[in-house]
Amino acid sequence: MSDASVQTQTLDYQAILQSTTLRTDSFLRGFIASRQGVPTLLKESIEYSLFGPGKRVRPALALLAAQAVDGCIEDALPAAAALELIHCFSLVHDDLPAMDNDDLRRGRPTNHKIYGDAVAILAGDAMNTLAFELLAECVNDPSQSVKLLLELSRATGPAGMIGGQILDTCYPQLKHVDSQAANIESLQRIHRLKTGALIRAACRMGGVAARADAHHLQILDELGQAVGLVFQIVDDLLDVTSSDAQLGKKAGKDADIGKLTYPVLLGLEQTQAELHRQHKLAERALDQLGPAAEPLSLVVHALARRDK
Amino acid sequence: MSDASVQTQTLDYQAILQSTTLRTDSFLRGFIASRQGVPTLLKESIEYSLFGPGKRVRPALALLAAQAVDGCIEDALPAAAALELIHCFSLVHDDLPAMDNDDLRRGRPTNHKIYGDAVAILAGDAMNTLAFELLAECVNDPSQSVKLLLELSRATGPAGMIGGQILDTCYPQLKHVDSQAANIESLQRIHRLKTGALIRAACRMGGVAARADAHHLQILDELGQAVGLVFQIVDDLLDVTSSDAQLGKKAGKDADIGKLTYPVLLGLEQTQAELHRQHKLAERALDQLGPAAEPLSLVVHALARRDK
Repeated sequence: MSDASVQTQTLDYQAILQSTTLRTDSFLRGFIASRQGVPTLLKESIEYSLFGPGKRVRPALALLAAQAVDGCIEDALPAAAALELIHCFSLVHDDLPAMDNDDLRRGRPTNHKIYGDAVAILAGDAMNTLAFELLAECVNDPSQSVKLLLELSRATGPAGMIGGQILDTCYPQLKHVDSQAANIESLQRIHRLKTGALIRAACRMGGVAARADAHHLQILDELGQAVGLVFQIVDDLLDVTSSDAQLGKKAGKDADIGKLTYPVLLGLEQTQAELHRQHKLAERALDQLGPAAEPLSLVVHALARRDK
Repeated sequence: MSDASVQTQTLDYQAILQSTTLRTDSFLRGFIASRQGVPTLLKESIEYSLFGPGKRVRPALALLAAQAVDGCIEDALPAAAALELIHCFSLVHDDLPAMDNDDLRRGRPTNHKIYGDAVAILAGDAMNTLAFELLAECVNDPSQSVKLLLELSRATGPAGMIGGQILDTCYPQLKHVDSQAANIESLQRIHRLKTGALIRAACRMGGVAARADAHHLQILDELGQAVGLVFQIVDDLLDVTSSDAQLGKKAGKDADIGKLTYPVLLGLEQTQAELHRQHKLAERALDQLGPAAEPLSLVVHALARRDK
């Protein structure tokens, strides 16, 4: 390959995402294929959601964060794969009739529409457990394995993503104040937990897998927090401005069911301003990481500008 | 304390179970209390199911298995607590309307009857994740932590308890043969996974926590397999012979919904014979472990004779 083509590849975020997705999927396929004795129906349901047309944002962040601190992408593959298992588990459960009741996800029927609620609940449960099995099995150094397990379990659990989903699902019942400030505080807490915790963990876990020092881990932490908010604000904006076909799921649903979102609370203009502010915070963190962070930087900017 | 009272205590399985339960619950309460930032509703729902009037069989097996191989009960507390978190998660999800649809568990309304389906799903998810967080956080030696994590995740996941629940829930749809032999094989697979995997893991994890050698781990493994079947066969028998009040849940339900059970397939007499056979296998394993296994032995025999 010529230098010019390497250069072109380096600057193309789509090629970067394609590469991180391929590596993550290949790792995940190998891991799932090597599980013995899984009932066929459960395996099918897991694979339906795990290998659907996802964006693989969290794996990309983990792999590129490892690279950004001069680590080896290979070392962060178990972290990337475990993050995607947790993300997919959360989507399958969030889509259930008892939760957000969504029929469409990534342009296809949701897991429970195909396999029924019981299988979807169990497939989600299985992916939750498999994420931790993967980190325990596929990370060679036990102390590295435990560090990654701690990051992922805390980001996933009741003080992380699952806690955020409770707040998001139950907000109308929990709301007891009407002030704008209190609502914004609630919204930020929901976002920090529901989407933010796992995205932050992705950046941190990439750093941990690459054995980053405390200083670099702190930068990745700040980057992860900003990227988590960028991602969620763009999600909120897309729900308002997109069609079902563009999103691959039901658009405009947030407002329909009275969910707290940035556009609902702040209006479009202030929401754009907040997006810009968080994007700047992410850029500031990226600037501290140097040239190895260029692919990560390209993907972060693409996330801030995505249209689906 | 006099020798006589030690002797009396040693021979009383109820006192043994009371002690293992107290230690497990105290450990679990400390762990849950130290989680910061958990939304109140989620914490309440978790505590409702985790600290309800359970039998704490799996923690007892783990703690007493550690003692049986001359280990320290204290070292097995994280394993015991993590096993109970997984067990409670599975009960909360199994009781959901989309699964077994049970209103009553341990004499109280099931989690979703109190908190609603969404919160119950998320409380189950959270306990699943917390079990792994606990093992990663509370076991001091990383290589011990990883060994326990591997045991628990494999016993819980799609080739373990969760796989068994799929087979149990979906059996009517999966059944494509009518022969008695094929049905017994299906039943054994369901039992080996659904209840057996976690009970076997309890015995093994006690051994791992006590750093048992391969020989003793193998004995605990065989014990765990036999105890798992003993436990399930007694469960099947109690469902036929008990009242709702005795069980603390709906009795006679298995037959009502056409579930495969030992009494349905083999009749009461042959089921009793199979119970006796598995109990003997457990005894044979216990005999190989020597005097330190006496408390474990008392609890195993009590499980084979339990009436609720």
